[in-house]
Order: sequence, then C-alpha cells, then structure tokens
Amino acid sequence: MTRRISIFDTTLRDGSQREGITFSVEDKREIIKLLDGLGFDFMEAGMPQSNPKDEELFGSLPSTKGSVVAFGSTCHPNTRPQDDLWIEALISNSSDWVCIFGKTWRMQLETVLKVNEEENLRMVRETVSFLRKNGKRVIFDAEHFFDGYRDDRDFAVNVVKAASDAGAEWVCLCDTNGGSMPSFVYEAVKDVCASVDAKVGIHAHNDSDLAVACSIAAVEAGADMVQGTMNGIGERCGNANLCSVVPDLMLKMGLETGVDLTRLTTASVAVAEIANTRLNPSMPYVGSRAFTHKGGMHIDALLKDSRTYEHVPPEAVGNHRVMVVSELSGKAGVARKMEELDIPHTDDDVRKVLFTVKDMESRGYQFEAADASLELLMRRVCQNLEAPFSIPAFRVYMDETSDGIKSEASIKVRDNDGNIEHTASDGDGPVDALSNALKKAMSKFFPVMDRIRLIDYKVRVLDEKAATAAPVRVMIRCTDGERQWSTVGVSTNVIEASLTALTDSMEYGIYVNRK
Amino acid sequence: MTRRISIFDTTLRDGSQREGITFSVEDKREIIKLLDGLGFDFMEAGMPQSNPKDEELFGSLPSTKGSVVAFGSTCHPNTRPQDDLWIEALISNSSDWVCIFGKTWRMQLETVLKVNEEENLRMVRETVSFLRKNGKRVIFDAEHFFDGYRDDRDFAVNVVKAASDAGAEWVCLCDTNGGSMPSFVYEAVKDVCASVDAKVGIHAHNDSDLAVACSIAAVEAGADMVQGTMNGIGERCGNANLCSVVPDLMLKMGLETGVDLTRLTTASVAVAEIANTRLNPSMPYVGSRAFTHKGGMHIDALLKDSRTYEHVPPEAVGNHRVMVVSELSGKAGVARKMEELDIPHTDDDVRKVLFTVKDMESRGYQFEAADASLELLMRRVCQNLEAPFSIPAFRVYMDETSDGIKSEASIKVRDNDGNIEHTASDGDGPVDALSNALKKAMSKFFPVMDRIRLIDYKVRVLDEKAATAAPVRVMIRCTDGERQWSTVGVSTNVIEASLTALTDSMEYGIYVNRK
Repeated sequence: MTRRISIFDTTLRDGSQREGITFSVEDKREIIKLLDGLGFDFMEAGMPQSNPKDEELFGSLPSTKGSVVAFGSTCHPNTRPQDDLWIEALISNSSDWVCIFGKTWRMQLETVLKVNEEENLRMVRETVSFLRKNGKRVIFDAEHFFDGYRDDRDFAVNVVKAASDAGAEWVCLCDTNGGSMPSFVYEAVKDVCASVDAKVGIHAHNDSDLAVACSIAAVEAGADMVQGTMNGIGERCGNANLCSVVPDLMLKMGLETGVDLTRLTTASVAVAEIANTRLNPSMPYVGSRAFTHKGGMHIDALLKDSRTYEHVPPEAVGNHRVMVVSELSGKAGVARKMEELDIPHTDDDVRKVLFTVKDMESRGYQFEAADASLELLMRRVCQNLEAPFSIPAFRVYMDETSDGIKSEASIKVRDNDGNIEHTASDGDGPVDALSNALKKAMSKFFPVMDRIRLIDYKVRVLDEKAATAAPVRVMIRCTDGERQWSTVGVSTNVIEASLTALTDSMEYGIYVNRK
Repeated sequence: MTRRISIFDTTLRDGSQREGITFSVEDKREIIKLLDGLGFDFMEAGMPQSNPKDEELFGSLPSTKGSVVAFGSTCHPNTRPQDDLWIEALISNSSDWVCIFGKTWRMQLETVLKVNEEENLRMVRETVSFLRKNGKRVIFDAEHFFDGYRDDRDFAVNVVKAASDAGAEWVCLCDTNGGSMPSFVYEAVKDVCASVDAKVGIHAHNDSDLAVACSIAAVEAGADMVQGTMNGIGERCGNANLCSVVPDLMLKMGLETGVDLTRLTTASVAVAEIANTRLNPSMPYVGSRAFTHKGGMHIDALLKDSRTYEHVPPEAVGNHRVMVVSELSGKAGVARKMEELDIPHTDDDVRKVLFTVKDMESRGYQFEAADASLELLMRRVCQNLEAPFSIPAFRVYMDETSDGIKSEASIKVRDNDGNIEHTASDGDGPVDALSNALKKAMSKFFPVMDRIRLIDYKVRVLDEKAATAAPVRVMIRCTDGERQWSTVGVSTNVIEASLTALTDSMEYGIYVNRK
C-alpha cells in the first residue's frame, strides 16, 4: 500500500501572520470549504475566543470531511491547565482536534521565559493530558525544535517525548526561524521518529529558501505530516508552500495525500483572491508562468515530446501550458496560439501574423505579456476584425498654476455609424486625463465601458541612447471584473503609446463582452 | 582552508528568458559591473553575435575582476566546429571563458534531434577541443543531465566525460526542467564527481520549488560551482536564486564564495530595477519583509536575544530589521552611506535624513537605485546644499495634427542671481519636449548641460487599484560622459514626476562637475 502523508494547512492561522493579511469570518469559512474540497486532512483555523471573529467561527464551524483544528499553547508557568481560560476555550468548541505549541529550545526558556526544564515539561505533560481527558485529539507543535535540537539534543527530544507520552497523537517539529538545512532536518527527524511513540510532523519556514526542501527531507526521514500554507503565505519569508509540497510528494515521490491535485491551481488563485494578495506568476506548479514557453526551439521540441521542457503535465495540477509568441518563436507557436483561441486560419494567415509580429517587435512591440493586443492582431489578420470606433482628434495640455500642475484632455470618438462624441476631462496627469476623456466619450456608445478599469500601467524606454526622444513601450492591464487582459503600445510619445494601448484595451473589452 | 565554491551568474542569459524581460546593452553593462562588485566569479552575458545588442556588448566588454562568459552550444550534427559561424563568434571576442551546452538525454537525441550517440559525443569532443585550441577556457553545461541520468546513467555520464576528457575545466549538470528531487541530485552529483576529471557544477531550475535545495545538495555531494540568477529570475518558475544560495552556502554551511554578502540586498534591488521587475517582498534574505516582525511578544523576545526569531543577523546580507512598532531601523546604514560619500554629519543629521527617507518612501520614493537623489537629499540636510536654479513656470501641450501628434513645452528657469531664461521646445512626446526646453534654458547658465544626457527612463505605477490616477515613480539615469547617476520622482502626474527626476539629475550633474 502506498504510504499516506497527512496534509495540515495553517493558512488561516500562521499564514495570516503575513503583514497586511486579515481574514473575515466569511473569508475563513470560504477557505475552509475550499481546502476541504481539495482534500486536506487538517485545517487550522485560529485560536478560539482570542478575538470575536474566531469566537464566531468556532461557534459554528462548517461541516467538513477533514478536521478543523483549534490552535493554542500549553498552560502558563506555575498555573494548571484547568485554571487557564485559553485552554478552556480549546475544549469548549466542537472541533475534534487541537494543536498546541510548547517550547523546546533551552535558550528561549532561559533567556526569554525564565522557566526551568522541569516546569516546562510539566506544562506540556499536564496540558496534553487535560485535553485528552476532555475528549480532544492532540497535535503538539514543538516551537524552535531544530534550533533547540542543535543546541541541546536531549533537552529538545525530552519535550516531544513528554507530549507523546501524555497522549499527543502527533508531535510536529517546527523550524520556527526557517534557518535549518534539509540535511540537518533529515537527521533530526530520523532521530525523533526512533525516539517517540507519536507520529511525527514537520512545520517549516522559508527564511533560507528551503521550506519545501526541509518538508520533503522530513518525509524522507519518516515524518507523516506536513504543515504549510496555500501559496506559502506567512510572516517574514512565509511558510512551506503546500501548492509545491503536495505535488512534489505525490508526483515526484509517489506518495498518497488524499488531495485532488487537479483542483490545486484553482484553489491557489481562489485563496489569493480571498486574501487579496498578489500571486507570484513564477510559482511552481500553480503559477501563471509555470508552464509558459518562449523560444522557437523549445516550442518545436515540446510539440515533439512534452517531457523535453515540462517536468509534469500541467493538467496534473489543474494548470495549462502557455506558448508565448515572440520574435523567437516560429510558425508552429503562432498556429498553436490561434488554435487555443479558436481562430480559424490558413497557412497564409500564419505567415502574415508572424510577419506582422516580427515587424512590430522590431519597432519595440512585445507580445509576450500583451495577450489582448496579440489576439486582436490575429483576429484582424484572419477574421478582418474591425474596431467599433475611431478617434479623429484629441488634444492634451498641462499648465503649472498656483494650485499645482493641471492636466486636461479633449477628444473626439466616432462610432461605426458616424456618430461623434466630443468631450473633455481633467486628470491626475496627462495619461489619466486622456484616459478619463476617452472613457467618458466611449461610454456614450458602449455601456460595458463602465465596468472596465485599468489596473496596471508600465512604461519602458527602448533605446536609451536616444534619451527622452527614445521610443517607449507602454503596457496596460485592464479588467472588466471577470477577466484581465494586457495590451501594448509603442511610440516616441508616451501619450501616444498610452493611447494605442488604451484603445486596444477598450476594443478588446468590447469584443469579449459582445461574444 | 575553507572550501571555495565558484558562483556563476546567468541573469543576463538564462534569467532574460523570463517572459517580459529584455536588457539593453547599457543594462547588461551595468549589471555586469554590479555583480562584479559583489564578487561573483563568472557572469554569463549572452551569445556573441546572436543579435546586434550582444554583438555590441561583446565588442567592448567592461573590465572586471571576475570573468564575463560567452554562451553557445556544441557544433551542429554533421558539421565541424571550424565551419560553424556561432562557434566562430565564441572565439572572436575578448572573453577568456566560454560556456557551451550539449545534450545528455538519450530521449532528446532520439525524439527531437535525431542524432545517434556517437555523433553526439563527437560534437561535444570536437567543439571543446576546438575552443581549447583557440585559447578559450571551457565550461560544459550538460542540458537535461538529471533526466538523462535517470533514463540511462551511462549515456549521460559518457557525455560529460567526453567534455572533460576534451579539456573542459568544468562540467555543469543542468536540471533543465526543474523536476529533480534534492536526494536524487545528491546521488547523481556524487557519482559524476567520482567519474570525471573536470570540476563539477550545478544549474537548477525551480519548477518543483527545490532549485536552492538541489544546488545545496549538489555542493554537499562535491559540486564546486553553482549557476543561478539574481532574484531567481528565469523562464517558467525561474532559476536557483543566488540571493538565497550564496548566503546559505556562506552563513549556514561555512563555505567561502568570495561574495561580499553585505552588498547583497542592494544588488538584488538594483537588478530588479534595471530589469523593471517587481520584487517579491517575502524573498529570503533580501526581501523587504525578510526581517519584518510584528506583534509585541516576538519583538520583546527579539530585544532579549535576536536569535529567537532571526536565523541570521539582517546586516549580514545588507538587509535591515523592520519592527512594525518601531521607526528606528537603519540609522547605521544611513551613517555608513554618508561616510562613504564623505559627508560630515552629526547624530541629529542621521536622524533627520532617516526621517525624510522614511517619509518619502511611504509616498512611493525609492532610493536603492536612485543614488544621486539620495546623495542630494543627504547634502541638503547636512550641508544645506541649495539648487543653483529654480523653475518658476512651465507648460506642456500636445495636439494631434495632420502631421501626427505634436508635443511642445515652454519653461522659465531662474538662476540664483535672479536672471531668467524663458524658452520653448518641441519634442518626441511631452517628457522629451519638457526635457529639451529645460536643457535649452539651463545651458544658458550652466555650460556643463551640453555634456549631460538622459540614458534611461523608467516608469512604475505604484498603486494599481488607483488606475491611471495612481502615483507613478519615474527613475531617470543620466551621464555626463564620465559618470552615470540615477534620480527618482514620484507624482500622480507622470510629467511632474519626470520633472522632479530631471531637475535632480541636472542639479547633481552641475554639482559633481563643480566640485
């Protein structure tokens, strides 16, 4: 039988320590359901009664296949667990499982807590026993375990032994500072597995860029649980990224976890949306760039055998392959892209598109990150797509006044029936003024304009020798609330380049919302 | 003696494969100088003569302590190296070192290249010999080595043996698809170290979130070179991040690399700025969040002993601790910078500068890559430096005419004796018009203006949610023919931000040429 590794998610607890992240009760419920659907065994949700939000959450937990876990700590020095309000909170909610942390590093006890070894062991032992007696199943998180083990092996191992002997089913070894090397983690985990009765887990932080590697080394050494977070969010450099660990365990090491990997990419995006964090497009397995290929040679090879440049099939993790079209890519890449977009085409069309792309790229355009501009270009060539509007005239002016610099733009927009809207707008800067005036005029003809927002704007100077007279490339990213797309414009005039990218963006927004 | 690991940077070659990244010749020169100052041994810069930019670069390489490396491949099937124009390009430039890649995976040869084993070995052998005969030192990059080794160990090892026997000083084993586990990499590298005469290197990709771990495992197994990129940039999920690997090797494993770690964070930021990429704040060691602490308990413990929540001292990698409750980080850094610039200062000056920097950074300024703006700010605070001119008024206007879009700017410049020059200029776009008018007016008072040229101009939107009304940061790079300097401006108006950066640049140019 395949060995089974338990996945313990702590996005809602340790993950929320990342600067700038806060989850509402509804956010937490939604993420719990999402991760339960993914197949995670444990979802740590917070500290019951530490704040009104967690109190409300633990007051009515969603029903799940996996276990929602309440988090807390051992009782305090010189107190008994039955007198501790925090521990009371751990037992007076409906979760079956409780995860408590305790200290395993002699330095921390001596320097920070001023507690001796015997008292520390008592706190661990009595808290675990008390929770067990009250019907809870216990996971013991050994804080700073690897630092503690490095300093004084017996001291650290005795703490986890005490937790195990008192009835904890799991002892989870934490690399709290994220400073340990995988080979050291391997040796320490091996030692603990041979020394305690409880099953062993690993909780790694990414401060040395090794959280995933330490998690895997621990599993190789005998650990049967991995604690981590979705997208690796967490304080400082984050926690072990479960979106990397789980596919590594399953696809590379042939282990079982119960996770439905085909839902992984969607879950990663959904958690990022709920947490309102920016996803790293280069994230392994689930990133938007994880299976993106450029370069004609690579693409030719991929079409012959995908193993040439893909370590796993993108579908295995619910992701998909992207072949970007750039000056490096050949006819096969262009044809493939048009098939993806369902654009009917002849061989001649492919040649024309490739010629146009290469010609525009030689003038500074770049289509790798401008999907909408590329799609419009292809549809113009193959389907004679025409813009539903034109801009016969515009004017932009800036003045320094006693009140600061004022920017204003006037514009004429004509629809394809010959109707003209002539309007003007102020703005925070000339591009903003022009964008406002353009949107205002366009809204008259295209109601979808009200939903389209510009969400990113980048400028790059292309030929530094030409100084301010150099062509600049403007990249714009827009959304209509459902999808996002990017467009590009090039000109020696930053306003004109912006206008090209803006009108392409609006044309694309109108096109996809008409379809 | 401490074991010495060679660091091989391929930001400019493999890193530039990341979607959306293109380096100009000036960008490449700047990055080479930056990484050379950091202490890297090898800086792979591109393929000579593959395009006009790399031709220009290799035509006049900057002088460096480390080695700039030219990249290429073995000769093609059924041709001799002496008949190959690409190999001709490798030998006809001034670099001492050449890195060529060759195939080591049987599947690739059979399915993609249709070349048999004997011919493949001949291509490797003859190309390495030919390069050696022409005075080059050779690094052989074994593409897909670990996939090849897994499929057919002898086949893969025979290729690197052929390279070694023909005179390659290094054979670098590539995990091209990023799919290998560290424990497997360890075993394979150990085997190769025992089988070939050449020294062994590792080149890992991050598709399994294990590029750093595989690099470290390879070093543990005997590899003496690590190839990677700054900030881990590279296609798909990126390459091994040297900003993580190097401190891991030095601070965790006690190995020597020749790198000045205290400059690492600044170098990471500077490369990101030049590449115009967004830095991940959670990046280990060098990220802005890598040593950020929130919560009183953690901070109390930290003040008692920093080892409680920091795996290494932030200063060791040129980063700094951020306590969310405290404003007092970075005084030492500011003082050190002022000493470097020979700016006399009191403790009070340091506090004032730090306060101003923090205040401006909170509004979107960034000084890591704007050396001249920072220096002016320090001199204004500590030496009451005053600008030798002011701009009482300016105006910019754009019109669409039958002849295209026209941009014009008018400006008044006043010198410190009260003389006013009022002039106007056209330009390719509004920033160019304004820059031209400004230069024209300034030339009247400051002859050095004729030598000052703007050589790079970058714009970044700071808060994408605010769309075109968002503040933008403009970074400008200027030269007077002898030195280069960078300045920064922030405003919701791209023209105003540009003007701030432009006037700072001119003030700096006048200042350094007066000294």
